[in-house]
Amino acid sequence: MPDISVDPSVTTGPIADSTKIYRSPDGLPSARVPFRRVNLTNGEHLDLYDTSGPYTDDSAVIDLTAGLPARPGVVRDRGTQLQRARAGEVTAEMAFIAEREGVPVELVRDEVARGRAVIPANHNHPEAEPMIIGKAFAVKINANIGNSAVSSSVAEEVDKMVWATRWGADTIMDLSTGRDIHLTREWILRNSPVPVGTVPLYQTLEKTNGDPAELTWELYRDTVIEQCEQGVDYMTVHAGVLMRHIPLTVDRVTGIVSRGGSIMAAWCLAHHQESFLYTNFEELCDILARYDVTFSLGDGLRPGSIADANDAAQFAELETLGELTKIAKSRGVQVMIEGPGHVPMHKIVENVRLEEELCEEAPFYTLGPLATDIAPGYDHITSAIGAAIIAQAGTAMLCYVTPKEHLGLPNRKDVKDGVIAYKIAAHSADLAKGHPHAQLRDDALSHARFEFRWQDQFALSLDPDTAREFHDETLPAAPAKTAHFCSMCGPKFCSMRITQDVRDAMADKSREFTEAGGRVYLPVVTT
Amino acid sequence: MPDISVDPSVTTGPIADSTKIYRSPDGLPSARVPFRRVNLTNGEHLDLYDTSGPYTDDSAVIDLTAGLPARPGVVRDRGTQLQRARAGEVTAEMAFIAEREGVPVELVRDEVARGRAVIPANHNHPEAEPMIIGKAFAVKINANIGNSAVSSSVAEEVDKMVWATRWGADTIMDLSTGRDIHLTREWILRNSPVPVGTVPLYQTLEKTNGDPAELTWELYRDTVIEQCEQGVDYMTVHAGVLMRHIPLTVDRVTGIVSRGGSIMAAWCLAHHQESFLYTNFEELCDILARYDVTFSLGDGLRPGSIADANDAAQFAELETLGELTKIAKSRGVQVMIEGPGHVPMHKIVENVRLEEELCEEAPFYTLGPLATDIAPGYDHITSAIGAAIIAQAGTAMLCYVTPKEHLGLPNRKDVKDGVIAYKIAAHSADLAKGHPHAQLRDDALSHARFEFRWQDQFALSLDPDTAREFHDETLPAAPAKTAHFCSMCGPKFCSMRITQDVRDAMADKSREFTEAGGRVYLPVVTT
Repeated sequence: MPDISVDPSVTTGPIADSTKIYRSPDGLPSARVPFRRVNLTNGEHLDLYDTSGPYTDDSAVIDLTAGLPARPGVVRDRGTQLQRARAGEVTAEMAFIAEREGVPVELVRDEVARGRAVIPANHNHPEAEPMIIGKAFAVKINANIGNSAVSSSVAEEVDKMVWATRWGADTIMDLSTGRDIHLTREWILRNSPVPVGTVPLYQTLEKTNGDPAELTWELYRDTVIEQCEQGVDYMTVHAGVLMRHIPLTVDRVTGIVSRGGSIMAAWCLAHHQESFLYTNFEELCDILARYDVTFSLGDGLRPGSIADANDAAQFAELETLGELTKIAKSRGVQVMIEGPGHVPMHKIVENVRLEEELCEEAPFYTLGPLATDIAPGYDHITSAIGAAIIAQAGTAMLCYVTPKEHLGLPNRKDVKDGVIAYKIAAHSADLAKGHPHAQLRDDALSHARFEFRWQDQFALSLDPDTAREFHDETLPAAPAKTAHFCSMCGPKFCSMRITQDVRDAMADKSREFTEAGGRVYLPVVTT
Repeated sequence: MPDISVDPSVTTGPIADSTKIYRSPDGLPSARVPFRRVNLTNGEHLDLYDTSGPYTDDSAVIDLTAGLPARPGVVRDRGTQLQRARAGEVTAEMAFIAEREGVPVELVRDEVARGRAVIPANHNHPEAEPMIIGKAFAVKINANIGNSAVSSSVAEEVDKMVWATRWGADTIMDLSTGRDIHLTREWILRNSPVPVGTVPLYQTLEKTNGDPAELTWELYRDTVIEQCEQGVDYMTVHAGVLMRHIPLTVDRVTGIVSRGGSIMAAWCLAHHQESFLYTNFEELCDILARYDVTFSLGDGLRPGSIADANDAAQFAELETLGELTKIAKSRGVQVMIEGPGHVPMHKIVENVRLEEELCEEAPFYTLGPLATDIAPGYDHITSAIGAAIIAQAGTAMLCYVTPKEHLGLPNRKDVKDGVIAYKIAAHSADLAKGHPHAQLRDDALSHARFEFRWQDQFALSLDPDTAREFHDETLPAAPAKTAHFCSMCGPKFCSMRITQDVRDAMADKSREFTEAGGRVYLPVVTT
C-alpha cells in the first residue's frame, strides 16, 4: 500500500459478549460466512448477521498496510452475477449470501436473475464478503464516508470505514472530493469487508480543477476504468439528468441538491448538449460489465426540501432512469436506483410504487428520506422516520444520514450515530415486512428484559457499549446488573417485578382451583 | 412555597435569534397568547407556537419561590370545558387556544363538545397557558419527569420541567415515586407554563409503603383530591384493568409493563376483587369534574415488546376503556386514552382505528410506540419512528421516550434529546396530515438553506444551539456563516451554489432566446 503520512489505527476486537463464528454453505467448504454469536448468561446464544469483517475476530491478524486477505473462489471473465443467474448458475457469492441471509440459494439466484436484487462484487475487490441488496432480503444500510477539501485525512477515513462496518454498515460509499482521492480509496478498498461505492464524477471534477464545463466523456470514462480496476463495487451515475428536466427545477425551493445532478446540469447548459453520461451510456454499461460493477443510477434531481418532494423534475428523471435500467440490464449490468431525499410521510410510498413500475423493481436505494426540514443537527432522526417507512414499502438499501447532515462533514461519533439510527430503521422495516428471522432478536432481548438479565439486554442491543454506559450512570455497581429493577422506577415500582408476583399469585390460584376440585373460575365483579 | 434544601436554578432567556411576542384574541384583550418570533437576517420573521412560558421572555421576572403569575379570567364552579362547550359557550381558554393554533374558535369549541379534543386546565392551575389536545389540532408532545427512589431531587425536577418546555414539551407528567412527592409536585405546578399530569396511584402506593395489597379506594380517593386541589391538570387512571384480562397476559413475553397496570393487577389478585378504580369510577368522575381535571385512561396492559403487540389483553382493556369513556363523558369529564408501547410498524395503524371505534374518537395519547425492541440507549429513535406513524394516523399527543428508557432515569440531556425527537415526530405528522401552518417553517428553513443564510437555518431549527455548534465544529470562523458552501462538500462541490449558477445560465439563455426573437426552446439530443 502506498505510504500515507499518518498510519491508520482502527478499532478491533469483538463486540461486547460476542464471538465471531463462521459457517460454510453446503458444497462450499472453503467459504467462511461470518456471524456474530451473542453469548447469553442463561447458556443460550443468538447468531446475528455480521458486517464487521475480521476486525471483530479475536483470532484475525490485522495488517492495514497489507490489506485484508482475498476471499477464495472469485471468478473473473465469466460475466456478471446477473448474467450467470440468468444462465441458471449458482455462484459462490450466491451460496455465501444464502447462508448469510438464511434463505434458499434459489431465491438468491432468481431474484438476481429478475433484476430485483444485486450482488455488488467487483472481481477486483476480493477482500469484501458477498452480500445482496433486494427487497426479498434483509434491508441493508450504506454509510457515506470520505473527505472534502475542507476536512479529514486518509487515516481518518479508513478508521471511519472500519467503525461504520463494526456497527452494521452493509456497504460504504467513499465520497471523497478533497486531496488524495485515489489513495484514500485504495486504503479503503483493500481494507473493507463490505462492498464500496463511489461517485466517479467527483474524482473527474477534481481533474478539471472543479470546473463542470471542462468535463468530458473521455476524462470521465478513464476515471471509471481507473476505479473499476481498483475494485469499486458500485458506482453512482447521474445519467438521468436531461436537458428537458432542468427547467422543471427552476421554481423549486432548493433547486438541485444532488452534487452530481447539479454538476451535470451545469455541464449540459454550458454545452447546450445532452449529458455525456446519457449519450455514452451503452459504452459505460460495457465497461462496468467487464468487472461486474453495479450501477447505482443517481437521482440527480431528488428533492432537497419538503416543498420540492414528488415534483415533476423528480419523477421525470425517474422515468429516464427506467429507460436506462432496461439498457443496462440488456447489457448484463446489475442496476439499482437511487431515491430521495426530503419527502413528507404521506408522499413516501408513492416513490416506491413509481420506482417499481418504471424501473422493473430494480432495488431501490434511498437517502433517508427526511420527513421534515426543520431539525438540522438531528437529521439522522428526521430521516430514520422516512427511511423506516420507505423500507417497509420495499426499499432495499437505505443510505444513512448523520446528525451532521447539512452542517458539516461527519466525524467518528456522527458515523456511529448515523449507522445505529439506520440499523433501527432497517430492522423496524424487516419486522414490518415479516422477515423470517428479524423478530428473534427482539424476542431474545425482551425475554432478557423480563428476566432482568441486564447483561444480555446490553449484549443483544444494537450498541451494547452505550446501553451499558447508560445503565451505569445511575446504577454502576455490579449487583445492579442482576437486580430486579432499575433507576427509572426504583424497586417498588418495577412493573416487571410486580408482574412476576402476579404470575406467582395466579399460579397459586390455579393450584387452589385444582385442589378445590376444578370449579370454573369466574371473576367476582363487585359493582 | 415550602423550603427545599437546594433552590432550583433554571435556564432562562430567549432561544437564539428569537423574541417572545404576545397576541390577544379578538374580544379578549387581557389574554396574552405567546409566540416565539424568529427574526431572520433578511428582515422577515416567522412566529412559532411556543410552550416555554415566561422563562424565554427577556422582560419577565422569574421568581421560582413565588411561582408564575396566575392567568386572568379563570372561571371556577361553572363546570368543565366539555360541559361549557356543549352549552355552546366559547370559554376564555378556547379563545386563547384558537389564537394559539391559528384556527377558528368554533372548531375548538366543537371538537371539545364532541369529546374529540380536551383542554386540560384544572381551575387550580392558573399558571398554565391553555392548550388543546385533539386530532384536528397540531400534534402535541408530553415529557415525563419525576424522581424515583433511587435518583434525583426537587430542584433537578423543576429544572427539567423548564428545560423540557423550553424545547417544546406541550405538557409535563410528574411521575415521581420517590421522596417528597407532594413537595416536588407543588414546585412543578406553581412554576409550570404547561398542563401537568400525574399518576395518582404512585403517591397512593407510597402511602402503603409500596405494598399493592394495602391500597384502598379511600386512600386513593384522598390522594386524588389532594392532587386536584393542588392543580394537577390530567390524571392517568388505570381503571381498565379487569380480573378477566389478567389471565390474557400470562403467555406474554414481557407480561404487564405499565407500573399502574401491574400494581392494579396485583391488587385484584390479592383481594380477588375487581379493581377499586373500576368499581368507584363514577365517584371518581364527579371528583375530577369539580376541578375540570381530565382523565387520561391508562393502558395498564399495553404491550412491552414487539411480541406482545396488539394482543388479546391489550385490546380487551381498550374495550373497557371505551365503556369508561362513555361514563366519564356522561358526567361531564374530559377524557383522553393512553396507548402503546411497543408495536411493529405494520400493526400501528390498527391501534388508532380501534381506539377511535371503541372510544368515540377521544384524543389518543400514546407512548411511542417503539418500532423495535433491540436498541436500548436509542429508544428516542425507535419510538420516534412509531410516534410519527401513529400521529399521522390520528394520535393527538405523543408521550416522549428518552434515550434512557429501559435503562435508568433521564437526566437533563436525555430530556432534551427526547423532546427534540418527539418534536420531529409530531411535526412530521403535522406535515403529513396537511396541518395548515406546519410547512411554513420547513419552507422558511429550506429557503434559508438555499440562500446560504446559515444563521437563519440555525434559528429556524428545532435546536438552534446544536445546529450552530455542529457547524462550528468544522467551520467556526464568522465568514463561514455567510459562505456559499459547508465542510460537507467543500466549495467546489456545493450543489446549491452550482444550482445558483445553473439558474443564472438559464436566465442568460432565456435572455438570448428573447433577443433572438423567441424561437421555441428545444433541448438538442445528441444520441
